[in-house]
Amino acid sequence: MIKNTLHIKHHTGEYPIYIGNNLLNDTSLFNKHIASQQVLITSNDIVAGYYLDIVENNFTDYQCNTAVVPDGEHKKTLETLRDIIDVLIEHNHHRDTTLIALGGGVIGDMTGFAASCYQRGVNFIQVPTTLLAQIDASIGGKTAVNHPAGKNMIGAFFQPKAVIIDINTLATLPDREFSAGIAEMIKVALLADAEFFNWLQSNMPQIMAKDEETLITAISKSCQIKADIVNKDEKEQGVRALLNLGHTFGHAIEQNLGFGTVLHGEAVAIGMLLAAQLSAELKHLSNNDVEEITELLERANLPTQLPTSLDAKTLIETMWQDKKVLQKQMRFILLQSIGHAYIDDSINEAQLLKLLQQ
Amino acid sequence: MIKNTLHIKHHTGEYPIYIGNNLLNDTSLFNKHIASQQVLITSNDIVAGYYLDIVENNFTDYQCNTAVVPDGEHKKTLETLRDIIDVLIEHNHHRDTTLIALGGGVIGDMTGFAASCYQRGVNFIQVPTTLLAQIDASIGGKTAVNHPAGKNMIGAFFQPKAVIIDINTLATLPDREFSAGIAEMIKVALLADAEFFNWLQSNMPQIMAKDEETLITAISKSCQIKADIVNKDEKEQGVRALLNLGHTFGHAIEQNLGFGTVLHGEAVAIGMLLAAQLSAELKHLSNNDVEEITELLERANLPTQLPTSLDAKTLIETMWQDKKVLQKQMRFILLQSIGHAYIDDSINEAQLLKLLQQ
Repeated sequence: MIKNTLHIKHHTGEYPIYIGNNLLNDTSLFNKHIASQQVLITSNDIVAGYYLDIVENNFTDYQCNTAVVPDGEHKKTLETLRDIIDVLIEHNHHRDTTLIALGGGVIGDMTGFAASCYQRGVNFIQVPTTLLAQIDASIGGKTAVNHPAGKNMIGAFFQPKAVIIDINTLATLPDREFSAGIAEMIKVALLADAEFFNWLQSNMPQIMAKDEETLITAISKSCQIKADIVNKDEKEQGVRALLNLGHTFGHAIEQNLGFGTVLHGEAVAIGMLLAAQLSAELKHLSNNDVEEITELLERANLPTQLPTSLDAKTLIETMWQDKKVLQKQMRFILLQSIGHAYIDDSINEAQLLKLLQQ
Repeated sequence: MIKNTLHIKHHTGEYPIYIGNNLLNDTSLFNKHIASQQVLITSNDIVAGYYLDIVENNFTDYQCNTAVVPDGEHKKTLETLRDIIDVLIEHNHHRDTTLIALGGGVIGDMTGFAASCYQRGVNFIQVPTTLLAQIDASIGGKTAVNHPAGKNMIGAFFQPKAVIIDINTLATLPDREFSAGIAEMIKVALLADAEFFNWLQSNMPQIMAKDEETLITAISKSCQIKADIVNKDEKEQGVRALLNLGHTFGHAIEQNLGFGTVLHGEAVAIGMLLAAQLSAELKHLSNNDVEEITELLERANLPTQLPTSLDAKTLIETMWQDKKVLQKQMRFILLQSIGHAYIDDSINEAQLLKLLQQ
């Protein structure tokens, strides 16, 4: 068994992230972070089919209940949250119960929010099974459900007791979703760590081949970069915004193409490249930089072009409505150089239109 | 204008409680605590009829929306929460918006929870209009909605930016609800401050006559006692449990008689007296103490008897189901003396049955 442990500090304490193989059935690892004799495992029907039994087996001596919900972003709603809470209440879970989120970002976000509000807060453990969730959702304490009018509109900042990342779960992850997770690695490299960007350039073949040691290193490094940024700004009022590199474009792309048609990571990949191109227009990046980014995305089987069906004007209009538009000011995360992002509030509609029509 | 200000510290900061008359139309007082140009006032249909116009008038220069929901504990649900969030989304409220809770405990709890989870947390100001909410809900950061299976099962710990208590609003409060608020004053005196208990004995006539200066003193003192206890234990893991004096009995009484039939404060009044009688059984209190408590409750027009319709066995069964039953151990808050409460986990069913059958 290979295993790496990170210690993530936040304003009320800290928690470990374990990254390794064969962790799902590491009973003593789970037990260390459970306060009472009650456990609720939440999952979606796809992931549950593969891994629920394995995780449940750690809790033969516990009151272990399960809440398996249908897979999909469209199920990340207040209604599903209510279903999870109903299970907790039905089985008389106390304040010292522990929720275990076994699944991707949707399960993690929703379970975290359920844990934050059930009896005003109970423990939870994240067991992210997608590459994107392993990097993105295991740090930052963001939990939420969607509202028909917008993603993540209802939620809380709430920290897990532990995150257990078993890279074996990536074996059953569809290739497109695996690539979408790599987009997140490239994102954190681009915005904060040029050296890691170079490392990704050298190691992309091993990552794509799911070499265990390389994956553990790549995930650990990505988590650490994210943790360092979040630590400086837990409530997302400043530097944490840099993590939204590619998101202003990305959200608008998702909203126009329809959630599910394009994966979040794919939309962010296109968004990052657009941000890089805008940064090149502003003479921060060279054309060669943009090419290197494009090439790395391509080697991860990520899209690098706006779909032809998407009209520039429509995209710009959608961006104005984005919830991150603060006080009517459009905000972009751009690159000063590879490995160094900054917030730019000065981009005007003409510059955008020019970029998008290219 | 008379005004008193308390400064309530909590683990992430502090906020003021203003207690006085004619505060609802003190525009500059409100403005001090509003971050942007957006405000949402929440209220119920009864309170809105009396005071919404007055509060709205402070915000003629703002984008001011309102969410008026039907009055009543049965409306403190996830569905009403959703209605409030729908209004915020419909009117495009940003992360720097401010929610203003104008009403009693139900409005305060629900608005606080909506503020805690809308975009993962926006500002809110409490304007409690019932005596109970002025004392109870303005400190401690407890927000929640009910679940059909139990009160306050879904919520968050979330602090207001300010609390504005205008005692003029007590003029329209029904007498029974006014008395229920006094139960809360007697409770904090009983559990933590013998001197304040004596003061209440001397000043009950002026309180019942709604003398402004006496009321401001009584509310300020009650808030301060509660704040001192909560400060020692913000997440309710120890000493804060003392504030549940009368609640183990009280909740069971409410649940059996039906919420609404008996007011929370009335149930707590009976519950406090039962706790006092149990404390006398254990020889902590004298019979004279119990009589003084009974007399003070009576002078505040509060009930001091279990309704004859309520059967002891049923009540005990309900108590076992109470959410505060931790790990199958029944927990009571009892009195060591007037002004000094403690947690007792050793009461058995026989002692309870004996007490309740008297």
